[in-house]
Amino acid sequence: MSPTPHSYPSFRSVLAEHPLVRIAGAHSALGGVIAEQVGFQAVWASSFEISAARCLPDASLLSMSEYLDAAAHIQKALSVPVVADCDTGFGNSMNVAYMVAEYEQAGITAVCMEDKIFPKMNSFAAADHSLLDVNAFAHKIETAKKSQRSEDFFVIARTEAMISGLGVDEALKRCAVYADAGADAVLVHSKQATKDEVLSFLDQWNDRLPVVVVPTTYPDWHADEARAAGVSAVIYANQGLRATITSLRSALGSIYETGHSAHLEDSIAGVKDVFALQRLDQWQEFTA
Amino acid sequence: MSPTPHSYPSFRSVLAEHPLVRIAGAHSALGGVIAEQVGFQAVWASSFEISAARCLPDASLLSMSEYLDAAAHIQKALSVPVVADCDTGFGNSMNVAYMVAEYEQAGITAVCMEDKIFPKMNSFAAADHSLLDVNAFAHKIETAKKSQRSEDFFVIARTEAMISGLGVDEALKRCAVYADAGADAVLVHSKQATKDEVLSFLDQWNDRLPVVVVPTTYPDWHADEARAAGVSAVIYANQGLRATITSLRSALGSIYETGHSAHLEDSIAGVKDVFALQRLDQWQEFTA
Amino acid sequence: MSPTPHSYPSFRSVLAEHPLVRIAGAHSALGGVIAEQVGFQAVWASSFEISAARCLPDASLLSMSEYLDAAAHIQKALSVPVVADCDTGFGNSMNVAYMVAEYEQAGITAVCMEDKIFPKMNSFAAADHSLLDVNAFAHKIETAKKSQRSEDFFVIARTEAMISGLGVDEALKRCAVYADAGADAVLVHSKQATKDEVLSFLDQWNDRLPVVVVPTTYPDWHADEARAAGVSAVIYANQGLRATITSLRSALGSIYETGHSAHLEDSIAGVKDVFALQRLDQWQEFTA
Amino acid sequence: MSPTPHSYPSFRSVLAEHPLVRIAGAHSALGGVIAEQVGFQAVWASSFEISAARCLPDASLLSMSEYLDAAAHIQKALSVPVVADCDTGFGNSMNVAYMVAEYEQAGITAVCMEDKIFPKMNSFAAADHSLLDVNAFAHKIETAKKSQRSEDFFVIARTEAMISGLGVDEALKRCAVYADAGADAVLVHSKQATKDEVLSFLDQWNDRLPVVVVPTTYPDWHADEARAAGVSAVIYANQGLRATITSLRSALGSIYETGHSAHLEDSIAGVKDVFALQRLDQWQEFTA
Repeated sequence: MSPTPHSYPSFRSVLAEHPLVRIAGAHSALGGVIAEQVGFQAVWASSFEISAARCLPDASLLSMSEYLDAAAHIQKALSVPVVADCDTGFGNSMNVAYMVAEYEQAGITAVCMEDKIFPKMNSFAAADHSLLDVNAFAHKIETAKKSQRSEDFFVIARTEAMISGLGVDEALKRCAVYADAGADAVLVHSKQATKDEVLSFLDQWNDRLPVVVVPTTYPDWHADEARAAGVSAVIYANQGLRATITSLRSALGSIYETGHSAHLEDSIAGVKDVFALQRLDQWQEFTA
Repeated sequence: MSPTPHSYPSFRSVLAEHPLVRIAGAHSALGGVIAEQVGFQAVWASSFEISAARCLPDASLLSMSEYLDAAAHIQKALSVPVVADCDTGFGNSMNVAYMVAEYEQAGITAVCMEDKIFPKMNSFAAADHSLLDVNAFAHKIETAKKSQRSEDFFVIARTEAMISGLGVDEALKRCAVYADAGADAVLVHSKQATKDEVLSFLDQWNDRLPVVVVPTTYPDWHADEARAAGVSAVIYANQGLRATITSLRSALGSIYETGHSAHLEDSIAGVKDVFALQRLDQWQEFTA
Repeated sequence: MSPTPHSYPSFRSVLAEHPLVRIAGAHSALGGVIAEQVGFQAVWASSFEISAARCLPDASLLSMSEYLDAAAHIQKALSVPVVADCDTGFGNSMNVAYMVAEYEQAGITAVCMEDKIFPKMNSFAAADHSLLDVNAFAHKIETAKKSQRSEDFFVIARTEAMISGLGVDEALKRCAVYADAGADAVLVHSKQATKDEVLSFLDQWNDRLPVVVVPTTYPDWHADEARAAGVSAVIYANQGLRATITSLRSALGSIYETGHSAHLEDSIAGVKDVFALQRLDQWQEFTA
Repeated sequence: MSPTPHSYPSFRSVLAEHPLVRIAGAHSALGGVIAEQVGFQAVWASSFEISAARCLPDASLLSMSEYLDAAAHIQKALSVPVVADCDTGFGNSMNVAYMVAEYEQAGITAVCMEDKIFPKMNSFAAADHSLLDVNAFAHKIETAKKSQRSEDFFVIARTEAMISGLGVDEALKRCAVYADAGADAVLVHSKQATKDEVLSFLDQWNDRLPVVVVPTTYPDWHADEARAAGVSAVIYANQGLRATITSLRSALGSIYETGHSAHLEDSIAGVKDVFALQRLDQWQEFTA
């Protein structure tokens, strides 16, 4: 009878039940709950969003414990699973073993690790995006898989081969190794303005493992097309954050400009909407 | 040369320099930085916003250490001061002494305490809003003032007399006692649909101490009018949060509905805007 | 295959299996692991110890989130259950509902709440030890029990009736109400120099629920005698902390006095002992 | 009038005032306060101790935010400065810039960074101890120095050249580069059973910068001799932890064996000693 969600399915089970799992990025429980309310089947605890909320670069400055706290806060408020963006796994294989123990204990059912070198830099930033040696990353995947306690725990191997300019072939080669290492799915990231690079990957991948994509730079790719092309999950990783920035600038800017907030009343959520998101009624049942 | 702000004025000094200090509520560094960028002179680290970001009621469920972390994260990103919403002071006078030590150490230059009983419930919720005995709260104010290390530290005494239905007279009586106890300013909270109650207070208060108001339910009160009526600081406490909720619902909802995010590209901040808020360029100067 | 313990029994199951559960207090995973290694069946995450490790009074200054972190850190390192000292439940019934949700999520299987008023003061301190109204505390117990998700979760109701000078009769009366409210066990605390007060309680209690005792001030009560008198669990709540203080004073003092540490080498644990407590060998299996 | 220490000298000023600064390791405020009470002029917030308290290896598993919290908790309780063990700086130069901003904000006046590769392994463990390229580490030192806000902030460059088997010459070469990069002092670590390696370094170093040593494996080196040989600060890094382990095993073990704790009463600190370390009397002045 706790006012917080009692249970939620694992990401593995959600993936099994949906032809395409649609996932929205979030950095707070609030964003996660709204994503769930509008229909998303899972929530991406995005390093980019979480670090942006702190006005810090997405560059391994925040620590694992801070990313974990954010992911856990989101998961606690949801009835759908969180997929935790775990960057490079926060170090070497020992760090990965620790990461899996900690995330699993916190109730997270899926994590994603990428094959860049720690500390990483956000994929869209103009920066060095050197990849870790493929076998070293495969060892991280193996470590994650043998560290997990529940069979349900799900590990996504993300390759940054296309982000680092090494192209589709390198992505395919790496993902094959990661599949052999035990990954449950692969995430193929591209920052091209079209989906072509990702399509080329999908053509040659032959559905060996589920494929996850993040169409930030090719936003016109319709979910149905992605599904038809062989995608199993699509992450809208940062649009919520970007909409938030615009709305904060607009709302706060107009209050400052006009000298009052009356004009906003009809266009922003009411205090009662906030109460509903806080589950206030349910919590108040517990007061004497 | 750190990419984060080196220094910021105390709230006391900001109040001395501006006829009216305009303050925007925030729950994250991101919201605080945008508030500063659009012109606000200070940022309110709002318990209502911070708890809403966790999808939890604003009812003393989150702990002092969590509210403090949120306030400190905001302050670190700003060149304007944070005013920390400290609810009831998190317990009795000993808790207040501890609170002042912790907030001051974290670089917060102003706190606000209210005269409700711990645990408190948000002022706009239908709930018991019993007030603490006036002398017990005065003792908390005295404790806060004698605990502070820097002369600059600023303590706002907030009365919930009008929230609890005790009216303007009780608010006046209480604020006089709080002024005697050493408060640096008073915050007079009202949830009436008009500013009348607050105006009545101001009429009889005679500028004994600076007065802070929170026009959530009387949003048409123009800042200039408030200033003319004797207000020293006005807090737009939760409009940013409420705009965020609306924009998240709209953006995430439309992605889910349409199956892609292309239509949003022109109306939401770009990835480069996020980088700017993260101060990425400045941080990248520190890479080898 | 994680180097940290995979699983541990619930406190409820440990209580069912042992005529007397012996419990040692700790404030860190290190203390908890040593308690387990020497034979204790459970570990008390003591507010007194946890606050003392921070050099702060045991007076509700540290927050629930800090006590929870400490308890969770201990539990993660153990194969025996933690019993979390939850003081007054950190506020009212709503706080208790939140507390149970948070502790249960963190893997804690037993909590203990006491019937003092928040903020509480340590039972051995010369201070006001006023009790909460008996029905208000019973409501907290009811709330805890109806908030729990697993049937296994265990709630100990601790009465401070004897600490506050109200005697055995008040303790009996209160514990009966707490039993009716659903408590899984009662903890009867006394600061008399003998066990007589507790024995008197046990004589009249008739085994209605398991009884937990904390023989800090009557340290000569042998566990077998306590068991014979009807005690189900005994907590040695702070002897570890007190031994630590003495040993730190002695070791650090002698280093400072003598100007070197050679004389300590044979009487203190070796660096390899520390490695063993850190499970270094097991963790090193995860490096590439 | 806060019960916590109002102010403390910077490590730089302590170093200026003492021919030899003696420093004790700690992982909690309690350990730090006892170190101060017995005479030490500073406290080492030891990664080895802090991770051991969590029963985790000293291998960059805990995050910067957790090490920082531990260091800050210690510093808040002290009137002497903390020297924070910052391992490798937690990543690359950008991480170092962030680290300095965070530690300085938390009131830490001295940090120590070592020239191993992230993630590091404890120096005494049988493991790979590869060093970072000397210029890359020098860049970290430069970054730390240009990131600091106060002139007082103090950066110790620690070489693991002798730990990694590269000998005195490599240590000298590296320390010269680190001095050129702006380090305020060097820490020369050795795990030989005698002080000879360190003495050889000191002979050739010519007092270019203050030298810090950690005589864990050569515990018979008297502080006066070290001073005479040119050492400016000596860290007794983990003896407190090791004494704690022994005393916990002994105290808890004997309670379990004997079935009571009466025999310990005369040999362990009393509850009132704990109260004194908690500064209970001073805090109680703040209750109504």
